[in-house]
Amino acid sequence: MSASSLLDDPEALAEQVTQGDAWAVSRLITLAEREDARAAKTLRLLQPHTGRAHVVGITGVPGGGKSTLVDQLISFARDEGLRVGVLAIDPSSRATQGAILADRVRMQRHANDKGTFVRSLGTRGDVGGLSAAAWDVVRIMDASGSEIIFIETVGAGQVEADIVSSAHTVVVVGVPGLGDSIQAMKAGLMEIADIFIVNMADRPDAQQSVRFLQAGLRPLKRRRSDWKVPVLTSVATSGEGVEELWRTISRHRKYLQDTGAMPDRLRDRVRAELLRRLERRLQAHLREQVDGTDSLDLLADEVASGGLDTRDAVIQLWEQLQFPKKEDSP
Amino acid sequence: MSASSLLDDPEALAEQVTQGDAWAVSRLITLAEREDARAAKTLRLLQPHTGRAHVVGITGVPGGGKSTLVDQLISFARDEGLRVGVLAIDPSSRATQGAILADRVRMQRHANDKGTFVRSLGTRGDVGGLSAAAWDVVRIMDASGSEIIFIETVGAGQVEADIVSSAHTVVVVGVPGLGDSIQAMKAGLMEIADIFIVNMADRPDAQQSVRFLQAGLRPLKRRRSDWKVPVLTSVATSGEGVEELWRTISRHRKYLQDTGAMPDRLRDRVRAELLRRLERRLQAHLREQVDGTDSLDLLADEVASGGLDTRDAVIQLWEQLQFPKKEDSP
Repeated sequence: MSASSLLDDPEALAEQVTQGDAWAVSRLITLAEREDARAAKTLRLLQPHTGRAHVVGITGVPGGGKSTLVDQLISFARDEGLRVGVLAIDPSSRATQGAILADRVRMQRHANDKGTFVRSLGTRGDVGGLSAAAWDVVRIMDASGSEIIFIETVGAGQVEADIVSSAHTVVVVGVPGLGDSIQAMKAGLMEIADIFIVNMADRPDAQQSVRFLQAGLRPLKRRRSDWKVPVLTSVATSGEGVEELWRTISRHRKYLQDTGAMPDRLRDRVRAELLRRLERRLQAHLREQVDGTDSLDLLADEVASGGLDTRDAVIQLWEQLQFPKKEDSP
Repeated sequence: MSASSLLDDPEALAEQVTQGDAWAVSRLITLAEREDARAAKTLRLLQPHTGRAHVVGITGVPGGGKSTLVDQLISFARDEGLRVGVLAIDPSSRATQGAILADRVRMQRHANDKGTFVRSLGTRGDVGGLSAAAWDVVRIMDASGSEIIFIETVGAGQVEADIVSSAHTVVVVGVPGLGDSIQAMKAGLMEIADIFIVNMADRPDAQQSVRFLQAGLRPLKRRRSDWKVPVLTSVATSGEGVEELWRTISRHRKYLQDTGAMPDRLRDRVRAELLRRLERRLQAHLREQVDGTDSLDLLADEVASGGLDTRDAVIQLWEQLQFPKKEDSP
């Protein structure tokens, strides 16, 4: 079958993907990114083949060494014979597939390994679409037989929160001494972390950061789960501490399975995804109706000149909205 | 008039704000943050008093020294007799008003200066509300007589993009050597920057970062404006380069005024704000109808078990949505 006809045949494409064909996986991801209708059809067929992969989110401050950690985790996973998927998310990048994160290149030593599939996603200016695309990519990798999927993100903003919180296991990577980034990490990421790791732990103030995080975690004991969030240390460049991280990730997976927490995680994940996708659909509808219209320009002028209050302008726009009737729902 | 009765009297409160009363400004901001209806009424009255402040967005990588730069810029502005407003945004923080960014404390030397009003905003878990709150705060500071308003953000994610792009002048702060953060900065923030500054320029690789940024800016020449985006350097801790930054900010303001670009900027800003606020209203409506419903739980279970495709689930949710009729628009 020729390349283009394969893409036009959802059943054949889905079949290739479930057999782990890297070319098919890659092309389907591209279609999904472009929100091509053919992707939707194929994903529908893949749905029954999903739900087997262990999804691990890796997030934290920029420059914290996440890519190096992921690179090493891949090796541990491969040593156990697991097929690996890696999704690198960079919402600040408008590029896609090509020259994403500068140090992505480090992962290339796995490029010729058939058991590892690496993909990067940028926003191409469409932040709203990034979460949806990421969810699709994870699902495609899962259906293609990846047994463990690492999602690496920079860890700020709603999109990344969406994506990371949709993982089974969330690893938050910090570095010592970056005062306010640790602070931010503490405040924003504390609640989603299953595992903390202070990388670059050969720096003198590493132990202080560890204590700082441990102290911050204490008040969070009240959360539903009885998993005790560990604070690990590593020096990713030398590999120190990575094996323990790998073992802790495996231990967390086992914890989820043993305690029956996995189905709950999965359902929470899907629920968040459905809501976000619904919002996105509504937003598209709204932008179509409002953005670029004379009515919006007029109201913006009135507000800019101080003659109209923003809230009143929003009410006027709201009143002009046409909502879809049941019959013409897409 | 007692404190609580002032808050209940939009006209009196607006009056106090326009007279620059710091207590009134502070309380109104708190009301706006809580989306209190009294804030909406007062903001409506303040609208004609807005549009005079020069709004300067300062963004960039965490730990890049933004707060120190802002701290020093405040001094330059105060030396010229300008009244200053500062809004520090930290979307990753759930705190508000209290212990936000760790180095916020550095700005405290301006705390007893009546001509400077500093305020921090965190998300309190509600990312969606942050843009709206930030826009309100800028408007309140503007109406209260702040002549220059600095908005400091960490610079990733949609919220910050929203806020920063709503400034008249956008300063992007980088640091040398942080490979992928510079990369991210380049990709995502290049297009919104009016001024670039490489801080910590006493590090050996500073000039390389400058060249890197200059090279990256060249292909962007095609943009509408004929403002040439300068790449400056600074060592904020010693104050080196900050005066030139201050002069460049003033020069950019003059450029906007002289070329008549200001009204366009203003209108673009308001247009973006209106769209975002409309989206938010729609989202609230949607969450009210869908989130926490049995129908969502049921669909999530079906998807999680592989029996239903996410897109099909979203279509089902969409079909169940009740949209507001004109009569009952809020």
